[in-house]
Amino acid sequence: MQQSRKNEVSVLRYGHRPGRDDRMTTHVGLTARALGADQVIFPDNATQSVETVTDIVTRFGGPFDVKRTDALNRVIREWSGTVVHLTMYGERVQDVTERIRDTCLHKESLLIIIGGEKVPSDVYEWADWNVAVTNQPHSEVAGLAVFLDRLFRGQELDEEWTDAEHVVIPQASGKRVVDTELTETESDEVNTESQSEKRF
Amino acid sequence: MQQSRKNEVSVLRYGHRPGRDDRMTTHVGLTARALGADQVIFPDNATQSVETVTDIVTRFGGPFDVKRTDALNRVIREWSGTVVHLTMYGERVQDVTERIRDTCLHKESLLIIIGGEKVPSDVYEWADWNVAVTNQPHSEVAGLAVFLDRLFRGQELDEEWTDAEHVVIPQASGKRVVDTELTETESDEVNTESQSEKRF
Repeated sequence: MQQSRKNEVSVLRYGHRPGRDDRMTTHVGLTARALGADQVIFPDNATQSVETVTDIVTRFGGPFDVKRTDALNRVIREWSGTVVHLTMYGERVQDVTERIRDTCLHKESLLIIIGGEKVPSDVYEWADWNVAVTNQPHSEVAGLAVFLDRLFRGQELDEEWTDAEHVVIPQASGKRVVDTELTETESDEVNTESQSEKRF
Repeated sequence: MQQSRKNEVSVLRYGHRPGRDDRMTTHVGLTARALGADQVIFPDNATQSVETVTDIVTRFGGPFDVKRTDALNRVIREWSGTVVHLTMYGERVQDVTERIRDTCLHKESLLIIIGGEKVPSDVYEWADWNVAVTNQPHSEVAGLAVFLDRLFRGQELDEEWTDAEHVVIPQASGKRVVDTELTETESDEVNTESQSEKRF
């Protein structure tokens, strides 16, 4: 369970209520993937989020691992590396990220815990760092996004994706998606059609 | 409707389905507040999100305005300033944020549109900038968070809050919340008690 493929950055969603939390938990997984983490670990009951994030990896590329665990606490306690817990009660992200980066990035594996509604006090103790992206109540997804962007100093934005079926081409206006399974010409044709269907 | 108090950065949630979107829309509002925007504008039917974000402003401070509109399109079309639409199909955030900052920040009011499930093609046309925080599918809340943190170059993290009933004090471990309505001594006592109750 522990090590990600590149042995670098993993995100653990701590706690999940099926139905009520599906979207937030899925967004945690998709944000982890899009902003440079190597894997997400979901609680065992987050079946729909596992399915959605796995589907996005198939369609938009990887590498990115999606795992499940029935032992959240054990994953944390037995983590062989650094453990960061994102919480509004923690130390200020602008004060500690550089030290976290220097200590562990590319040196040992980093686990980032993203709490659900209730995080037991043990988690605060087990974590090497409790980190706050502002000491204000907002969104665990927003906190994860800002933390990853700062941890990687924005370099995650230039990452290349492999084995993607669809590639979005940046546009000043409208939408352009290239289907990599078709040849270049076919792809352009398909896109023109689908864009025109969508009124773009 | 248009101008925020400081005439600077407003976030518009475009589209909302009551029930299904309540949490995401609320997180858009709370993220806007925590990461330096001056106001959020919700669709008229987002009554629960209005309530929650307003309550957070009362408890954790401002200044931050929460508004509603029954005319999303008119707010955009009649905006007297710059309009940014965050979308995975847009130009790369790392390529355009500096230009957006130089053009409008502290010069004219900025409206940031955060889409719900379906954003009509007109919005892409009305926007001065369509901006992508990665061209990958993830979370509109994550996109907003990274965009604001980059727009403000992290300075939003040092903002002071006024008229807060509760202030969270950054901690390496555990939780510490100061109740500003009590005297300093009383507040410390209350916190010791409540922390002990919470096992922190």
